[in-house]
Amino acid sequence: MELVQVLHMKEGVGDASYANNSGLQKTVISKAKHVAEEAITNLYCSIMPQCLRIAELGCSSGPNALFVILELVSTAYKACQKLGRQLPEIQVFLNDLPGNDFNTLFKTIAKFQQNLSQEMGNGVGPCYFMGVPGSFYGRLFPNRSLHFVHSSYSVHWLSQVPPGLEDNKANIFMSSSSPRSALKAYYAQFQKDFSVFLKHRAEEIVEGGRMVVTIMGRRSEDPTSKECCYSWELLALALRDMVSEGLIEEEKLDSFNIPQYTPSPTEMKLEIEKEGSFVVDQLEVFEVDWDCYESDGPCNAAKCMRAVSESMFASHFGSGIIEEVFRRHREIVVDRMSKEKPQYVNLVVSMTRSG
Amino acid sequence: MELVQVLHMKEGVGDASYANNSGLQKTVISKAKHVAEEAITNLYCSIMPQCLRIAELGCSSGPNALFVILELVSTAYKACQKLGRQLPEIQVFLNDLPGNDFNTLFKTIAKFQQNLSQEMGNGVGPCYFMGVPGSFYGRLFPNRSLHFVHSSYSVHWLSQVPPGLEDNKANIFMSSSSPRSALKAYYAQFQKDFSVFLKHRAEEIVEGGRMVVTIMGRRSEDPTSKECCYSWELLALALRDMVSEGLIEEEKLDSFNIPQYTPSPTEMKLEIEKEGSFVVDQLEVFEVDWDCYESDGPCNAAKCMRAVSESMFASHFGSGIIEEVFRRHREIVVDRMSKEKPQYVNLVVSMTRSG
Repeated sequence: MELVQVLHMKEGVGDASYANNSGLQKTVISKAKHVAEEAITNLYCSIMPQCLRIAELGCSSGPNALFVILELVSTAYKACQKLGRQLPEIQVFLNDLPGNDFNTLFKTIAKFQQNLSQEMGNGVGPCYFMGVPGSFYGRLFPNRSLHFVHSSYSVHWLSQVPPGLEDNKANIFMSSSSPRSALKAYYAQFQKDFSVFLKHRAEEIVEGGRMVVTIMGRRSEDPTSKECCYSWELLALALRDMVSEGLIEEEKLDSFNIPQYTPSPTEMKLEIEKEGSFVVDQLEVFEVDWDCYESDGPCNAAKCMRAVSESMFASHFGSGIIEEVFRRHREIVVDRMSKEKPQYVNLVVSMTRSG
Repeated sequence: MELVQVLHMKEGVGDASYANNSGLQKTVISKAKHVAEEAITNLYCSIMPQCLRIAELGCSSGPNALFVILELVSTAYKACQKLGRQLPEIQVFLNDLPGNDFNTLFKTIAKFQQNLSQEMGNGVGPCYFMGVPGSFYGRLFPNRSLHFVHSSYSVHWLSQVPPGLEDNKANIFMSSSSPRSALKAYYAQFQKDFSVFLKHRAEEIVEGGRMVVTIMGRRSEDPTSKECCYSWELLALALRDMVSEGLIEEEKLDSFNIPQYTPSPTEMKLEIEKEGSFVVDQLEVFEVDWDCYESDGPCNAAKCMRAVSESMFASHFGSGIIEEVFRRHREIVVDRMSKEKPQYVNLVVSMTRSG
C-alpha cells in the first residue's frame, strides 16, 4: 500500500470523533507527564533559551494537544522562576497530517491563554502558536531549530502497512497465530520508521535539546503477547465472524492489516542506540485500564477503538459494512470486560540530543 | 464596535468565495511583484541566512498566498545561485485570523513543491510551512525571528470601525458628503492601527530585514476623492435606494461603516517615519481596472466586492436582505462600467528594519 494512502487513512486518527473519545489519551498523558516535566525542567535549566521552541507531533485537533502544552509551558515557567530569570518567549509548533482539523485546533488557542493565566497567576510570558501540516516521518522543521519535542500516542502508527504480510491471512495485526514472516515484517517496518523518525528529529533539535515520546507498547519481548495484541484481536474476531457468515469476503480480510507497532522497551532502546543521535535519560512502562477514562466503561473502550480505526476499515471493507463490524465488536468488548480487566501497556521514553 | 466583532466580520475576507474571486488580488500581486523581488534579493544578499524565515500576513485560504510565496522563494534561490552559495533552508509562515480556512490552505501546500520544482528545475532546497492564526494588529512571532514580511491587500483593513462616526449617516465609508469629524475619525484609526502594525513587526523582524506591504490607497491627498471611495459609494447607493423604499431602516444604514482606510503615499510615509523603526526603500502607486481580472467584466467586479463585504453586511443588516442589496449593487456596477473605466489605486511600500 502506498504511503499516501496510509496517510489518508491515518487522518481518522486526528478526526473530531477521536478527539471526543480521547479521555484515554488524557489519562495516558497524565500518567506520563512527570517524565515530560522533568525533561523540560532539565532542558530549560541547561540551555535557558530566550525563546523556547516546543513541538507537539501528532497533536490531533482536540483539547489534548493544548492540555500537554499547558503542562509543558507552566513547568518551564516554574523552572525559570526558581532560577530568578525573566520568563522566556515560547513558540509552540502543533504538528499533524495535512488532513487534520487545524481550523478547530486554532479556535481553541484563545482559551489556552486563559488557562495558562489561571495556572500561573500573573507570571505569563508571550506564547506564539504555529500549526505545522506534514508527516513526522519526513522533515518538518529547519536544522537545529527546536529545543523540545513531545509526542503522545502517535509514533506507534507506522508510515505504511508493512510489505510482506501476505501470510497474515485472518489476522489484522500481530497475533499468536501470525506466521513468523509477518512478525518479521512488522518489526522491520518499525525499525525503519522509528529510525527515520529519530534521524529527522536529530536534525531538527538543538544540541542538548530533549524529546519525550509516549506510545503503546508491551513489557514482554514476545510481539504476540496479549498485552499488545488483544484490542486488535477483538476486532479481528468480529471480522472473522462476518466472513464465516458470508458478510465479508475472505480475501478482503486476508489482505487487511493495521499499520501499527507496539514495541518492547528493549526494541525501542535498541533503535535509539543504533541511530546514535540521542541518549536515553528515562524509559518507563505503565498500564492504563481499557475503561480508565470514562464512567460508562466498556462501551467507551469500544468507541475509542472505533474512532481510531473506522476510516481505515471503511476505506478497505467499504462503508456499508462498518456499522455491523463495530456493533459486533462492541458486543465482544462488553462481554470480555465483564470477565477480565484488560489494560493498554504504554512506553514513555525521554531522551537528550547528544553533541 | 468591539475588536472581536470586527475580527469576526473580517473572517469573510478570508473565506472561500473571496479566494475564488481573487483574480483581482492576483493582478495586484503581479503588478507589485518587482518590488517584493527586489526587496528579497537585497535582503538575501545582505544577510545570507542559513534559514530564511518569511511571513505572509493576511494570507487567506486561496492559491494567492502560495503564488506570492512561490515568487519570493524562487527569487531568493536565484539570488543565492548568482552568489554561488548553497541554497538556504526556507521557513514560510502563513498568517491569517483564527477563523481563516487553514485546512484548505494546508491541503494546497503539496502542490507548491511541484510548482517550485517546475520553476527552478532541480535547484530546490527544503521549504517548511507553518500556519499562524492571529491578528497582525497583535504580536504573532518571537523577537527578531523573521527576515522578510510580505502582506498583500490586508493592511487596508482597520482593526475596528473607527469610533466617532455618528455623523457619517447615509455614508458607509469616507465620502464627499462625509462630515469633517468622520474623515478625522477614519484617519485617526488608520494612524493608530498602522503604527501598531509597524511597532509589532519591528520587534519581530531582524535588523536589516525587509517588509513589503501592498494595500488599496489613493494618489490624492483628499480622502474623499473618487479614486478611493467609489467602490463603497456604489454599495451605499444600493443601500440608500432600499432605505427610501422602506426595505431597510434608516438608522440601520446610519450606524453602518466599513472598517477600511485607503491612505495616500504621504500619509503612509508619515506613519513609517513617526514610528521610526523602518526606512522606506521604495513606494510605488499603481492602478488596476475594476474589470482587469476576468473575462466576464462588471459582474466580477461586483462579485468581488460582495465576497469581501458580504459577511459584514449580513451581520449588520441581517442575512435576509443581502441578496437584494447585492442584486441592486450589481445593476449599478454594470451600468457605471458601461460608461466609465473605474480603477483601484494601490500602494506598495518596501522598507528595511533599521539598526
